[in-house]
Amino acid sequence: MQRGSRIRTLNRGVTVVGGGMSRFGLFRDKDSKDLFAEAFLDLMGSVDKGVDPEAIEALYVGNFSNDFFVHQAHWGPILSDLIGMTPKPATRTEGACASSALAFREGVFAIASGFYDLVLVGGVEEMSKRTTEEVAEGLALATVPYEGKAGFTFPGVFGAVATAYFHRYGANREHLMNVTLKSHDNAPLNPKAQFPVTIRDLMAAKRKSASEKGLPAPEWPDEKGFLEDPSVNPVVAWPMRLFDCCPVSDGASCLLLAAEEIAGRFTDSPVHVAGIGQGSGRGLHACPDLTSFEATKYAAREAYGMAGLTPEDIQFAEVHDCFSIAEIVHIEDLGFFAPGKGYRAVEEGATRLEGPKPINTSGGLKCKGHPVGATGVSQLFEVWTQLRGRAGKRQVPARDLRIGGAHNLGGTGGTCTFTILERR
Amino acid sequence: MQRGSRIRTLNRGVTVVGGGMSRFGLFRDKDSKDLFAEAFLDLMGSVDKGVDPEAIEALYVGNFSNDFFVHQAHWGPILSDLIGMTPKPATRTEGACASSALAFREGVFAIASGFYDLVLVGGVEEMSKRTTEEVAEGLALATVPYEGKAGFTFPGVFGAVATAYFHRYGANREHLMNVTLKSHDNAPLNPKAQFPVTIRDLMAAKRKSASEKGLPAPEWPDEKGFLEDPSVNPVVAWPMRLFDCCPVSDGASCLLLAAEEIAGRFTDSPVHVAGIGQGSGRGLHACPDLTSFEATKYAAREAYGMAGLTPEDIQFAEVHDCFSIAEIVHIEDLGFFAPGKGYRAVEEGATRLEGPKPINTSGGLKCKGHPVGATGVSQLFEVWTQLRGRAGKRQVPARDLRIGGAHNLGGTGGTCTFTILERR
Repeated sequence: MQRGSRIRTLNRGVTVVGGGMSRFGLFRDKDSKDLFAEAFLDLMGSVDKGVDPEAIEALYVGNFSNDFFVHQAHWGPILSDLIGMTPKPATRTEGACASSALAFREGVFAIASGFYDLVLVGGVEEMSKRTTEEVAEGLALATVPYEGKAGFTFPGVFGAVATAYFHRYGANREHLMNVTLKSHDNAPLNPKAQFPVTIRDLMAAKRKSASEKGLPAPEWPDEKGFLEDPSVNPVVAWPMRLFDCCPVSDGASCLLLAAEEIAGRFTDSPVHVAGIGQGSGRGLHACPDLTSFEATKYAAREAYGMAGLTPEDIQFAEVHDCFSIAEIVHIEDLGFFAPGKGYRAVEEGATRLEGPKPINTSGGLKCKGHPVGATGVSQLFEVWTQLRGRAGKRQVPARDLRIGGAHNLGGTGGTCTFTILERR
Repeated sequence: MQRGSRIRTLNRGVTVVGGGMSRFGLFRDKDSKDLFAEAFLDLMGSVDKGVDPEAIEALYVGNFSNDFFVHQAHWGPILSDLIGMTPKPATRTEGACASSALAFREGVFAIASGFYDLVLVGGVEEMSKRTTEEVAEGLALATVPYEGKAGFTFPGVFGAVATAYFHRYGANREHLMNVTLKSHDNAPLNPKAQFPVTIRDLMAAKRKSASEKGLPAPEWPDEKGFLEDPSVNPVVAWPMRLFDCCPVSDGASCLLLAAEEIAGRFTDSPVHVAGIGQGSGRGLHACPDLTSFEATKYAAREAYGMAGLTPEDIQFAEVHDCFSIAEIVHIEDLGFFAPGKGYRAVEEGATRLEGPKPINTSGGLKCKGHPVGATGVSQLFEVWTQLRGRAGKRQVPARDLRIGGAHNLGGTGGTCTFTILERR
């Protein structure tokens, strides 16, 4: 605990009793309502003992800026109408890429307050109707005023973070590649992922395509050689290349939250909200240290404090890898590894599916996709799925999973959350 | 109570111990940060025993779409930085014109949950940097998809509501004028109002201006004659004219919420959150009745149920008068007057400052102004101010004020809230 901080707890226990996700990807023929319906129907099928949708009392939905992307705001009532909840309340939360982690948190507060017992939380974003240039313009709405307007876009900001990290700790591009390779190894095991392919798959596909055109097969010494080939992996913002960056995506996600004392109506294996934390940040122009995010550290302290747990207790986690360097910095800020040791841990395989601290078993933002407003709840969906042992081929192997975490970051660190779920 | 609805209550009492507002108006030289700073400094001076800003644990801020209006989203961390709260959490809520009523509600839940004890809630909107046409386009983001995109703008929707109301209950334009006249009578008593002038003031100014130009003084039989003169009050969407519509505004508002058991640290006269309610609506295309808002009725039931109060107990209220007809319909939906009797009550003076049920003592959205995201909390600020007997010249006269309400509507009824504050 930091000096002066107090341990915050909830008056009433809250559990996750259902969850759903749409497929993530680029869907020119699906709008936000289609995507949310897909996620909600997935959720309805996930509740062990079933749930009467009439029993759901309120909706919280995270959305970053469909205002910009599809020229429609005020998504709360649109989605409450879609799933037949009207006239029950529906509230939109916005915290850039952490928008639906905020929806989750408000759902937790609404139940812990005693006001509601059963609340639906989710998120949605519909980005593919805009051009790449327009998406970049839209995402810049989430940077702090001194960044986007100065041309400091997201890849630029995280490129600066990578440069600072390399300088301080002696890491290099190879360490970024280790993150990308791991994400691509996990993604084919996730049927909802946007890019369910390994780097080896991509290399084979490129060779096959060349062969079919009668061209000489490209030669790469290995996967890292492939990732250093500018013809397949061009520079975006040095030292980051295309495969260091998460994609543009459409998608939706949701979770059903229930008060602890009624969870048994829906399932015999509820997952408990053990710790929640949220912090805010100033943007990199005001940070004393580019290799750490103040808001993540604050959120982590709150969550660990409430849960009575330490970073060592977190068996696996989803961590906001909007860029490969972000995953490395955040696993340090969350206390999983000491400052400057994160890149070594990745290199040694500690964060792989079969390693001691699996990170982003879902494929992460890089490969699962990053429909901005849907990401926070989709991370929690992954943790919930793993804790229930329902993650299929990507299930964390050979251990009794009890505790997992989800870390979501909005903007350039303006909003960060850390949430700890626990199977008791 | 409606069949099937249950009475919802909070596990922990929440109070209002401070409040502030910027002046509302058109401020080309002030941005959202300037406006929020003005409101926050006003709040800091309002806390009877003072408050150390370091003690504030979290921020909730309502904003409709500065995404659109000033091309900047993610206002939570920008404002937490502004007032020195970083790295404490800051969350933006959005529910169109009800955005900051949602921020208030989430602040209440956050405290009632036991997680926080002292939370700042507020709202902000910066609209005047855009042209009138652009503001209309931005506001249309809040209509449901079948309205805005079909050209059914806000004045059009409420014009249809007025037409339906006239047809059903036999009201006419004169009854709308009664609402406008009342709002303009209250506004000069509110130093923060955008239009602190009576209709009589405007008539005198027009006559003076004509005289100074050597033109014949305009002749109007009375205030209603003035309001029927198309040269000063042109038709916007029949039967509504300009003076039936609230203006475009810039502004910010905030309130300081404290857990009941610590309220005494800040003031000896806290105001209690007696009831909260929120509902969602489908938009008018799906409403069986254009003369009533389902979401308002749902919100009212929740709030009355929690408070254990009836509409008769509410001594005065701020009611969402985005258009004159909206005030009439809402005072019926809130149960203050029977369906079809609201316009008569206004005609008889029941809703005037000195009447038995004063409505919009602040001047309402029409005259106080309507910076969309700031409105919900500004209404609660007015109720809090009146309950503390600090409303100056617009103080509800000659009675022991204990209970007041605030009703906020977003979009075309997509999001509605009703909140009851009580001095005990």
